[in-house]
Amino acid sequence: MFKLYEYSPSGNCYKVRLLLTQLNIPFDRTEINILQKESRTPEFLVKNPNGRIPVLEIAPGKFLFESNAIMFYLSEKTEFFPNDKFERAQVMQWLFFEQYSHEPYIATSRFWISVLGKAEEYQAALQQKKAPGYAALGVMEQHLEKNDFFVGDRYSIADIGLFAYTHVAGEGGFDLTRFPAIQNWIGRVKNQPRYISIT
Amino acid sequence: MFKLYEYSPSGNCYKVRLLLTQLNIPFDRTEINILQKESRTPEFLVKNPNGRIPVLEIAPGKFLFESNAIMFYLSEKTEFFPNDKFERAQVMQWLFFEQYSHEPYIATSRFWISVLGKAEEYQAALQQKKAPGYAALGVMEQHLEKNDFFVGDRYSIADIGLFAYTHVAGEGGFDLTRFPAIQNWIGRVKNQPRYISIT
Repeated sequence: MFKLYEYSPSGNCYKVRLLLTQLNIPFDRTEINILQKESRTPEFLVKNPNGRIPVLEIAPGKFLFESNAIMFYLSEKTEFFPNDKFERAQVMQWLFFEQYSHEPYIATSRFWISVLGKAEEYQAALQQKKAPGYAALGVMEQHLEKNDFFVGDRYSIADIGLFAYTHVAGEGGFDLTRFPAIQNWIGRVKNQPRYISIT
Repeated sequence: MFKLYEYSPSGNCYKVRLLLTQLNIPFDRTEINILQKESRTPEFLVKNPNGRIPVLEIAPGKFLFESNAIMFYLSEKTEFFPNDKFERAQVMQWLFFEQYSHEPYIATSRFWISVLGKAEEYQAALQQKKAPGYAALGVMEQHLEKNDFFVGDRYSIADIGLFAYTHVAGEGGFDLTRFPAIQNWIGRVKNQPRYISIT
């Protein structure tokens, strides 16, 4: 059985949990408390030399890291990943957008404010995350004004990837009421079969 | 013919240029001077709403952005992308590692020092990039001590993705002499058929 090493408040881990659930694939969960540096132990670094979660153990000793790569592994040849060559690349395009232009601002702000509870200590750094975080939400809003989902007009891992931290962006101090198209899309994602919430 | 919108000093653009050349695919190049904000014009934002280069125009009006997604598009079903399901996901794993844990430190340092020529102005920010940049190089070194390439013991887009900014890490103030396995791998990449240099 697949074994997921995760820190449950993490949106990156939630992506994998949500997809596995929607694929109806059973899996074991092992909690790795990153606040206690459990992802930096010598034992864990064998699983992921980069010391991050999630990690999926596919077979004993066979590990895959990076949430979006894990989703790619799980979704190929399923309804959650397109068959069309250009659409496949568009899914990857949005997932790389997520990791480069979205997650470092929105997820990091949420981590400081709502996981660590240290909004005041990180006040200056949080301020620097605002503009790029809102810019990423703006790019999403513009796309969703004209499309129900990110690629090929159907729910895919591109939506799961972007949903994970967007729907809890408020926990990072981002005001989603400015983004009606994103809010409608969040509703559509939550209505997908076998949807589970982050907590 | 494919049309590549790029800023030629960019390692992200070089990835696409190198792969297209190694695939023997002819392409047109359009220089986008990001220093003059040419990637933020209304005209360019139609090509990439996120205002970044590279963008590949696959057919008139059909655009793909994010360098690693473009490489995925170009390399599927070629010798530069594996057939094996797990190895395919491992390629994506290393490419996400590159964009999240490597590029924001090593590429950004190189940009400030060697493209903008503003090492002094960015001195404090550069200092903050050191530890995570060296950590990423350490993860690569550890992998390359035991492997000739990143995935499946053969050259793939995972190598191209990581090579782009690693081989010019010195231009970002990173000392590659500490990493003999990386240096040997750089030699192997440079020996690949139809290799072209970044400039």
